[in-house]
Amino acid sequence: MAVKLNPHVSVDCVIFGFDGQSLKVLLIDRNLGLTPEKQTAPNSLKLPGSMVYDDEDVDTAAVRVLKELTGLENIYLQQLKVFGSPDRLSKKDDLDWLQKATRMTINRVVTVAYYALIKLHKAMPCEGKVIWQDTQNIPELAFDHRDIVIEGLTALRKEVQYEPLVFELLPKKFTIRQLQTLYEIIEGRKFDNRNFRKSISRWQYLQPIDEKEKNVAHKPAQFYRFDKRAYQRLKKEFFE
Amino acid sequence: MAVKLNPHVSVDCVIFGFDGQSLKVLLIDRNLGLTPEKQTAPNSLKLPGSMVYDDEDVDTAAVRVLKELTGLENIYLQQLKVFGSPDRLSKKDDLDWLQKATRMTINRVVTVAYYALIKLHKAMPCEGKVIWQDTQNIPELAFDHRDIVIEGLTALRKEVQYEPLVFELLPKKFTIRQLQTLYEIIEGRKFDNRNFRKSISRWQYLQPIDEKEKNVAHKPAQFYRFDKRAYQRLKKEFFE
Repeated sequence: MAVKLNPHVSVDCVIFGFDGQSLKVLLIDRNLGLTPEKQTAPNSLKLPGSMVYDDEDVDTAAVRVLKELTGLENIYLQQLKVFGSPDRLSKKDDLDWLQKATRMTINRVVTVAYYALIKLHKAMPCEGKVIWQDTQNIPELAFDHRDIVIEGLTALRKEVQYEPLVFELLPKKFTIRQLQTLYEIIEGRKFDNRNFRKSISRWQYLQPIDEKEKNVAHKPAQFYRFDKRAYQRLKKEFFE
Repeated sequence: MAVKLNPHVSVDCVIFGFDGQSLKVLLIDRNLGLTPEKQTAPNSLKLPGSMVYDDEDVDTAAVRVLKELTGLENIYLQQLKVFGSPDRLSKKDDLDWLQKATRMTINRVVTVAYYALIKLHKAMPCEGKVIWQDTQNIPELAFDHRDIVIEGLTALRKEVQYEPLVFELLPKKFTIRQLQTLYEIIEGRKFDNRNFRKSISRWQYLQPIDEKEKNVAHKPAQFYRFDKRAYQRLKKEFFE
């Protein structure tokens, strides 16, 4: 029987975080820690990822990448899309870097892209080693990673219409202003403040808590929380 | 540099069709055309699929499988999910069949599953060579293909809530009865006839045509059509 050189299979993770003002995506600099002569010239930024290990489930590889990088478990993580063009490694810099980094002869890599939503305020072991890039200003990236980030943003925009994903990005207690800003960024449009407050006043799973902002120049805003149980109960009632 | 035996990458297609009464999925019998002693014993039914060729985009491989099998192009086709467990080939029968069929030494296969929606009334070259299995009664299948079909049904159930996918499955002209039956199967629940008609009366893209059923025992029902342009116009207005 013929043995042929199959594609490698990798995972890449689009990890989104929200700092209260802008939606960010986590990137890694391939040149970090390398002396100048060893650095890859252009597009040194890439998504975090890994080859899938021999005995590892593909989904498990994505969980591993996320865990190693952020120290966090139980994060919202979804398969996004497979990027399987045979031209993914057509840039020589990318292929060279990949063969050095993996110490493998590489012909083709099919990658399974995932997207994850994390709460940015939580302390993470990766801080200082990664770049949180504003999603409104994504530069050219290594491989086809810019396309993958854009696909992640499109998926997020679609999903927030049906699922309460914004609460995966917000801190446990948040203001209506933060909630509105996040929706505005994801959907790429401005909302009228009064209409927005009117809409969300119907969300029974959005609950004010007995606490307000402190040390702010303006009138302190009320904090709210997402009541997941209430949401799940309402959803169940609606669909049954 | 080390060369290791990577996983093979394949595509598998969950192709749905609706015959007016039930929602079907297209399956292939591995034993078809084989003499009894060459046949695989249990679970001979599988999804149509293929290894991805060396220079072929993964999505292109799915389009190829669909075209070869049905003769149809411009079919609704979406990536569903990657099935990447290292145990996918753990059944000896499955592995034996696969090595014989592909004439390759195979260690592991990561498969990218797609789902497609087709109009069953169109003549297809594959007729007679495939099995259209009722989705309400899926038997054990080869590999993890039963899980893949179930994942396809789940995705379809979710997507029909937001996209007019049912019209990909219905003939060009259809009755309200057919439309309701299809929704009932996909969503797995019965609708009250009057409420259903009331709901859809608000769909401006659902248009009666100047034709009724013929040769039926009951009162002939009005035919309707889906006005795709009207739908796209309304959607655009809604989102802008």
